[in-house]
Amino acid sequence: MTDRQSQLEEFKRLAALEAVKHVKSGMTVGLGTGSTAKYAILEIGRLIQDGKLAEIIGVPTSQASEDLARSVGINVQELTAFGVDVAIDGADEIDPNLDLIKGHGGALVREKVVEFHARFFVVVADTSKLVPELCSKVTLPVEILAWGSRATVNTLAGLQNGAQVRLRTKEGQAVVSDNGNLIADMSFRFPVTDVREMDARIRHTPGVVDTGFFLGYANIAYVAGPGGVETFKR
Amino acid sequence: MTDRQSQLEEFKRLAALEAVKHVKSGMTVGLGTGSTAKYAILEIGRLIQDGKLAEIIGVPTSQASEDLARSVGINVQELTAFGVDVAIDGADEIDPNLDLIKGHGGALVREKVVEFHARFFVVVADTSKLVPELCSKVTLPVEILAWGSRATVNTLAGLQNGAQVRLRTKEGQAVVSDNGNLIADMSFRFPVTDVREMDARIRHTPGVVDTGFFLGYANIAYVAGPGGVETFKR
Repeated sequence: MTDRQSQLEEFKRLAALEAVKHVKSGMTVGLGTGSTAKYAILEIGRLIQDGKLAEIIGVPTSQASEDLARSVGINVQELTAFGVDVAIDGADEIDPNLDLIKGHGGALVREKVVEFHARFFVVVADTSKLVPELCSKVTLPVEILAWGSRATVNTLAGLQNGAQVRLRTKEGQAVVSDNGNLIADMSFRFPVTDVREMDARIRHTPGVVDTGFFLGYANIAYVAGPGGVETFKR
Repeated sequence: MTDRQSQLEEFKRLAALEAVKHVKSGMTVGLGTGSTAKYAILEIGRLIQDGKLAEIIGVPTSQASEDLARSVGINVQELTAFGVDVAIDGADEIDPNLDLIKGHGGALVREKVVEFHARFFVVVADTSKLVPELCSKVTLPVEILAWGSRATVNTLAGLQNGAQVRLRTKEGQAVVSDNGNLIADMSFRFPVTDVREMDARIRHTPGVVDTGFFLGYANIAYVAGPGGVETFKR
């Protein structure tokens, strides 16, 4: 690991430590997926081992997070009708309103179900994720049904003249989500001036399960960089 | 079969025969699912056998329709980026604008993907399916992810105070769609005065794959009853 990479890991860890302060004994906690959320899971496990947190139930947003949570002694269960008290997760882009793009870890729909049902949703990130407007830096992940995906991809590409839509692959194989669906990554040719309208248009396309736009979900973000951990509230 | 049932079957068959007149040689045809669409598949097969239709490609909306189509000699393929020339399918409710509720056969999402990508969509039904407004007679099917379904069902029930949402079962087992998802059947307590708004609110709920509302999809409907086959155009 280079110095730069290890510094980035330290930023992610610092943001996660701040987020975990929202977790109190007896809470049901949504456990995010990805390289920053990982540090939150590790910290919750450490506090349980140290006797500083008790009766925590974790609701993991992916198989990977479930495996990690179990390995550090967090009791896990599936999301119930009662939702979760707090959820902690990373993001791929964060705009000044705390609207997010997520899903580059491939777990976007489970994350969205849990975080929609979170009474408080804490985002953790490093400063590289801050953007003036969404769709500035990363593609928009869209989870779609495998069945009919060629038609769905074609329709998505038509939503903005010149948009590019690519099915995500890894080592030459289609990436399949935990729900058995495909991930289409959309690159827009022009700035998306109204993300809510674009989100609605994408979701209106049959075959689309959900998008990586998390609009109005986050309550607070802890963003770590060379200047320390900054707090952003909506 | 009672006289009444056999009369109903005859209505369904007559509507389907009318619809199949839209199918011409060389067309790619979306093949619906259910007790009325079945007669259209049988008729297309018959016309192929009789040499009156050639070079037809069927795009089935369910495994059951695929099996039936193959059994009567229709070549089938999955939906491509080019969509289909014409689609023929039944409906559970048809309102005066040709807006529909579908999905009581459990194939709603594949039907929706195919019929959205149809250049012409023909609905076939008997007169019992005509309603003054949607949600008058039948529940609204909503396809949802199994994961987190308790939270999703709870949120759907909250969309209209007093709405009832039941996961569909058959012989005590959860019904699983061809996409591996569950079907939630919604009963509204009050008339749904704005179906487009309700559709958008349901689709906005994470965990929802799609709804049984087919709004603005149908081009024409053939509806058979004691007075013959009536034609409705949008």
